[in-house]
Amino acid sequence: MKQDIAFIQREELKAKPEPVSLGFGNYYTDYMFVMDYHIDSGWHDPRIVPYEPITLDPAAMVFHYGQAIFEGLKAYKTADGTIQLFRPEKNMNRLNESCARLCIPQIDEQLLLNAIKQLVSIEKDWIPEGEGMSLYIRPFILATEPHLGVRPSHQYKLLVILSPSGAYYGSQLSPVKIHVEEHYVRAVIGGVGHVKTSGNYAASLKAQEEAEEKGYAQILWLDAKENKYVEEVGSMNIFFKINGEVVTPKLNGSILPGVTRDSVIQLLKHWEVPVREARISIEDIFAAHERGELEEVFGSGTAAVISPVGELNWNGKSIVINEQQIGQLSQRIYDAITGIQLGKVEDPFDWTVKVDRVESVL
Amino acid sequence: MKQDIAFIQREELKAKPEPVSLGFGNYYTDYMFVMDYHIDSGWHDPRIVPYEPITLDPAAMVFHYGQAIFEGLKAYKTADGTIQLFRPEKNMNRLNESCARLCIPQIDEQLLLNAIKQLVSIEKDWIPEGEGMSLYIRPFILATEPHLGVRPSHQYKLLVILSPSGAYYGSQLSPVKIHVEEHYVRAVIGGVGHVKTSGNYAASLKAQEEAEEKGYAQILWLDAKENKYVEEVGSMNIFFKINGEVVTPKLNGSILPGVTRDSVIQLLKHWEVPVREARISIEDIFAAHERGELEEVFGSGTAAVISPVGELNWNGKSIVINEQQIGQLSQRIYDAITGIQLGKVEDPFDWTVKVDRVESVL
Repeated sequence: MKQDIAFIQREELKAKPEPVSLGFGNYYTDYMFVMDYHIDSGWHDPRIVPYEPITLDPAAMVFHYGQAIFEGLKAYKTADGTIQLFRPEKNMNRLNESCARLCIPQIDEQLLLNAIKQLVSIEKDWIPEGEGMSLYIRPFILATEPHLGVRPSHQYKLLVILSPSGAYYGSQLSPVKIHVEEHYVRAVIGGVGHVKTSGNYAASLKAQEEAEEKGYAQILWLDAKENKYVEEVGSMNIFFKINGEVVTPKLNGSILPGVTRDSVIQLLKHWEVPVREARISIEDIFAAHERGELEEVFGSGTAAVISPVGELNWNGKSIVINEQQIGQLSQRIYDAITGIQLGKVEDPFDWTVKVDRVESVL
Repeated sequence: MKQDIAFIQREELKAKPEPVSLGFGNYYTDYMFVMDYHIDSGWHDPRIVPYEPITLDPAAMVFHYGQAIFEGLKAYKTADGTIQLFRPEKNMNRLNESCARLCIPQIDEQLLLNAIKQLVSIEKDWIPEGEGMSLYIRPFILATEPHLGVRPSHQYKLLVILSPSGAYYGSQLSPVKIHVEEHYVRAVIGGVGHVKTSGNYAASLKAQEEAEEKGYAQILWLDAKENKYVEEVGSMNIFFKINGEVVTPKLNGSILPGVTRDSVIQLLKHWEVPVREARISIEDIFAAHERGELEEVFGSGTAAVISPVGELNWNGKSIVINEQQIGQLSQRIYDAITGIQLGKVEDPFDWTVKVDRVESVL
């Protein structure tokens, strides 16, 4: 179904914050994209409107039964002023995977991608320029029907908001201390850990809070069935470089299939660096360190791109990785992905998608 | 901290629906209770205001990271016009358990219970009278701070809304067909299944949808680690009567500690009917049926009170329980609990809490 996207202009634009003061996810642009769903009429009324509060009935099902999913991607401004997205079709696709698991009606991926391009084009002056800077794009869907019985909602709202952002973990790629969690779990096979639904993040907060109290920056999550196999780090995928080979947990139904994860794997294959997806026990990681073979550890995700791990604490024992320095390969991957995102290096994978200026809509 | 509850009166009251058309969770009363939290000022501004939509920033954390918890309890009108609640302090207590697990600041249980009593008293004319009828009370808390980084919110809103309701599963206590789920799971030890957070319900929808397509009314959930031990049925706790003894899954960290579950156990002990909390494998349940010893199966919960199970389908095999009839003990428990709730029989446990008329507030 071809639907035109309406545009309602606002009278006054906001003042834009200084790039140095951005942080992550603190500021929002002048406009947002909105589309509604009703069981009788499907997805309808796609529109770009002034960024403004949304009004929901207190019985709206999202507040009670958590039907809420989201995506995260970024728009970048290259040196020559080109605006580009990074593999956005992967996010559109994963949004529909999340919809399917959460019983939310499928969206038209092409329509949404077009809407995002139009919105980003309108907000092009909000894209901060420079290392680690981007316009973070957050599409999300929530159940809006007022009803207190447990069942899928008959009404939804899809929104896309934009947030000009600096680096997620500050300006330095500095390796962090990670606590391997043995009590709390993030997700389990048969559950919803492989999709981006709000409840996964709520469930992760307590372990994160307790780890911070012990002086760690993030949690490394183990599998819920045996408390043995590595799954994710914080809200990122994780990679280990052991004796020249890179390994990452195999997607098993409780691990999020990260876009950056996939990009890292493709990049390593392209470089002919050995890379393998496997079931990895935390015991094996500590044993590799014991043998002097654990060379690098890093997380991957849209927000931080690459986040090096400098120390792992498990079962009362701490190991330091690569003398708390960012590894050579970690740095090379970070430079390659951010280089492609910012148009500084060639994109052999066709990962970037240019956003044409949509002057007409203005 | 003692806080006065403000009251903002509305100009016009809504028309009340006919009791026969109520259903469950479809209508809301004229007023709601609201209280706000800010990290700098704590919980503040408790107030009873007209029931109206709430307005949130699109970046409000509840939409993205799912910090949302709730409770469910009921107010009843007895034959002599007394209004009473059923064990409300259990719900206040569990709300704080949910807060703790989800990194939401603790609430003042006494203040909230007082607020609920005042609200119910103001809305006394909304309480439907008769068998299976009640005023359903839904306290809930949601994260309201606009922020896109994953961490606990610094701002929350607590609301209590009221919904005049008929029986959750219609008017008859008719035994339903249940599918024992082997692929999807509801919760796992180390997760959040033992508290009432919105994500648990979102995660349960897909299995429920698929079970309905196969002709079953509800899901019986097995444990996530071994797919072997019985946990809950739908969003209720579950009981089995085997050879004269009643057994229910022992609370293990992934099962919700239901108020009705606890009431059933206390009632059975009071009656000197053997009752036991244990780890129960689905295999043992089917074996008990094979031996002719599986006498009754029922779910327990606030919404439905007691919901008899007439058929269990597991691993391609179906067993019929008590010839698809409600069991004698199930009926006796239902009659006792609803009798106490409606003030028709003596309450030897002091479970009911009277709501005094709060004329002053009007």
